[in-house]
Amino acid sequence: MNLESVTSRYVSGLEDELRAAIPQPANTPEPLTPFYAMLRYHLGWIDEKGNPQGNGGGKRVRPILCLLACEAAGGNYRQALPLAVAIELLHNFTLIHDDIQDKSEERRHHPTVWKIWGEGQGINAGDGMHALAILTLLKLAERNVEPSLVVEANVRLNQTMVSLVEGQFLDLSFEQRMDVTLDQYMSMIERKTAVLIGCAAELGAYVGSADRDAAAKYGQFGRGMGIAFQIQDDILGIWGNTKDTGKPTGDDILQRKKTLPFLYGLQAAAGETKSRLVDAYSAKSVSDEQVREVKDILTDLGAKEYAEEQAKVHYEEALRRLEEAKPQGKAGQDLRLLASALLGRTR
Amino acid sequence: MNLESVTSRYVSGLEDELRAAIPQPANTPEPLTPFYAMLRYHLGWIDEKGNPQGNGGGKRVRPILCLLACEAAGGNYRQALPLAVAIELLHNFTLIHDDIQDKSEERRHHPTVWKIWGEGQGINAGDGMHALAILTLLKLAERNVEPSLVVEANVRLNQTMVSLVEGQFLDLSFEQRMDVTLDQYMSMIERKTAVLIGCAAELGAYVGSADRDAAAKYGQFGRGMGIAFQIQDDILGIWGNTKDTGKPTGDDILQRKKTLPFLYGLQAAAGETKSRLVDAYSAKSVSDEQVREVKDILTDLGAKEYAEEQAKVHYEEALRRLEEAKPQGKAGQDLRLLASALLGRTR
Repeated sequence: MNLESVTSRYVSGLEDELRAAIPQPANTPEPLTPFYAMLRYHLGWIDEKGNPQGNGGGKRVRPILCLLACEAAGGNYRQALPLAVAIELLHNFTLIHDDIQDKSEERRHHPTVWKIWGEGQGINAGDGMHALAILTLLKLAERNVEPSLVVEANVRLNQTMVSLVEGQFLDLSFEQRMDVTLDQYMSMIERKTAVLIGCAAELGAYVGSADRDAAAKYGQFGRGMGIAFQIQDDILGIWGNTKDTGKPTGDDILQRKKTLPFLYGLQAAAGETKSRLVDAYSAKSVSDEQVREVKDILTDLGAKEYAEEQAKVHYEEALRRLEEAKPQGKAGQDLRLLASALLGRTR
Repeated sequence: MNLESVTSRYVSGLEDELRAAIPQPANTPEPLTPFYAMLRYHLGWIDEKGNPQGNGGGKRVRPILCLLACEAAGGNYRQALPLAVAIELLHNFTLIHDDIQDKSEERRHHPTVWKIWGEGQGINAGDGMHALAILTLLKLAERNVEPSLVVEANVRLNQTMVSLVEGQFLDLSFEQRMDVTLDQYMSMIERKTAVLIGCAAELGAYVGSADRDAAAKYGQFGRGMGIAFQIQDDILGIWGNTKDTGKPTGDDILQRKKTLPFLYGLQAAAGETKSRLVDAYSAKSVSDEQVREVKDILTDLGAKEYAEEQAKVHYEEALRRLEEAKPQGKAGQDLRLLASALLGRTR
């Protein structure tokens, strides 16, 4: 299946609201034009010279999930648009900073913001998008959302941001360590990936229904999906095909990423086998042959099955939470479709 | 005069509220302990090994101004504590990122966060402090501040953050340019320095009085002070004594900072004199002799008098706005003292 049938009715309203969140050149003094160009570039609307671009800004999964949850919980998705956009901007703010931290030179087949404008201005681009995200969320108050609910949503969103930064801190600090436990890894991806997806679903439902308990179930649904999605990404990073992922096979091994399958393998291995895993991840660089060797070791140790089982557990738990939330109408059906599309993906 | 008589009655309440804004080790899983250690280190509470420190966290001018404005406008300063702390945290978040962008290795006589923990984790430290600042602001709702006022304060604070990041963008982009106008410079320091000081005074008064018009006057007072303060800093950066500033004489010339006196001189100079200014600021490095030469040229061109006059104009305008706001009681008197202490400083 493709996602278009799920997302198409939201896309244009969402893009309009997104564009309204970023100041236009006409409304900013000339020396600031390049500042907002960085943000528009990252969101996929212009190329680095400022020429209009097709949509290269990502799949907008989080805001779509937010709008679906709002409708499935009985609300009008238009009311939740500022929230959906705030979440998408926060996600993109973290991507801009992540790319600096990881020294990533490309994202979505284009040079990253820092690669074009330098690290200093890349930091500013992320910081500006962070502040604009919160400003956008506060527009909920102009859409007849109760001020006390706006404050509450803002608290949840900022708690989520704190968790996200904690997750990014853990991810970076794990690079220096060989003693990361499976629990610590799960706690890292919960923060770095799952909480924002959970927050999108939870707050969408909360704006739609003002029912805190139902919203919490949507939040658990989103977090479970996020964890399953990340573990699936970990599996593809080792066993995925270049044809599907657009990356070399075993790319995560090449980059010595301590993902779930690797950490499971490291824990399960002993003696000579364990040494080989440690050696490959400690060396300054790793050969194609070593990548294949690590992959074979992890396969033999059952790391793929382990990770698949974990993804399945979290996915099924997520679906149970969704059913408990009693999602309504077409949006409810679409949430199930979205979940299966995201978790059934091969890239 | 010293500031202690003005600040002493707020200091302990303010520090308690600041400490409550940063999660304690007891409340965070162990792998996150070093994350919050970075924040506590930057705020001056611990050294880089985690040992408790005396107060090395700065003068807390912005939060004190905020609390004084709250009281002078007729409020109870305790109600404004979450706001004052949010402003101090936002200020410190920008310092952490500025130090990365400027590659500054020391702040307040200690190594900067990025210098100890690296740029990637330094970015995280700033991002985390940014999110914690907004979370702290939202505690206003727990202090009997109306939710709609909390939303409004949050909008103003986030608009301020957008301006601040714009100012930082301009400051960095001016480093690459020799055609910066005096107007563009003023617009940069307005954003980078003045808006947050203005916001501290404005929102303090707004929480204290719920009177938007009076609060706006406090805001103008704070912005005027901020601009005057920055220009005074520019003057000290060229003509200050090492004894007073703790920096080499002419340090801003040594660092080729395009401050107001330099830009005025560049505009006023012609022929050979102009070439010398341009050459000194275009070369890869600048000798002590060149620093002296640039300083003498700027002195001869009347750049110091020009800057002093500008600072005076903004300072007097600030004081007029303050009187229009009719500040009450001891706090009102203290605001005048604070202004004269900040603007009469030699370092």
